[in-house]
Amino acid sequence: MRADAMAEPYPVTTLETDALEVARLLAKERLPGIVVTDADGRPHSILGAAQVVRFLVPSYMREDPSLAAVVDESFADRAADALSGVPVGRLLTERPVELPVVAPDDTILEVAATMDRTRCPLVAVVVNDQVTGVVTASRLLEFALLKP
Amino acid sequence: MRADAMAEPYPVTTLETDALEVARLLAKERLPGIVVTDADGRPHSILGAAQVVRFLVPSYMREDPSLAAVVDESFADRAADALSGVPVGRLLTERPVELPVVAPDDTILEVAATMDRTRCPLVAVVVNDQVTGVVTASRLLEFALLKP
Repeated sequence: MRADAMAEPYPVTTLETDALEVARLLAKERLPGIVVTDADGRPHSILGAAQVVRFLVPSYMREDPSLAAVVDESFADRAADALSGVPVGRLLTERPVELPVVAPDDTILEVAATMDRTRCPLVAVVVNDQVTGVVTASRLLEFALLKP
Repeated sequence: MRADAMAEPYPVTTLETDALEVARLLAKERLPGIVVTDADGRPHSILGAAQVVRFLVPSYMREDPSLAAVVDESFADRAADALSGVPVGRLLTERPVELPVVAPDDTILEVAATMDRTRCPLVAVVVNDQVTGVVTASRLLEFALLKP
């Protein structure tokens, strides 16, 4: 089993895309995350939906979580404003989750070992510096356990 | 917006369930993870599909990843055998990902702050020690950005 046979298309965004647009896509498609590339389409990292949520939590609340219980509910009101005009790159946390990369002819075992090593549930299949598809952990299990 | 209005049913397993059964469910439903409870149904942790993959990578390969490229492809052959008869609890890594918990009447902001604090993209809504549903990060974004 080659990596490209397991790979699936996966939504991709760039570091410069408007964060509100990306957050709406994550919400609408109920995606756990999206692949982020640089302006040249080279894989950069993953933006998880949880990182978007994190960006929306005010910093004073991070220091005193008990405030979340007493503050007036303005989360939904603030959310779109907070994301609008912000490039995706600003939402990536201090240490962005580096997107692990495999070659199209890597074996299922190489993909699994890469997932293991990087502790990342998504691996990008890359040809000529471009992301051609993604293998998720559950997709890999599908090929390991369900395909004859 | 209350936590229970956002919560959705989410597949649940226990620490004692056979790992092969759970891995097949993750593969078949293409789930990124599953909620693990103890024998009494109390929330314990999350088992991500990537942790199952990790369990399937032989330890000698973890020490020398280059071996993955040269070893004969036996991953799919070994996978079902390696998981069969193993309780889910054994697949949880050294430090299991603790499942963050909220009350049904917690606000969207409290759920977001909990997600932020725990760095976990899944939050369980718990009533009387039982998981009644789960809020994912993308679900939370849906309510923050798409629901009027």
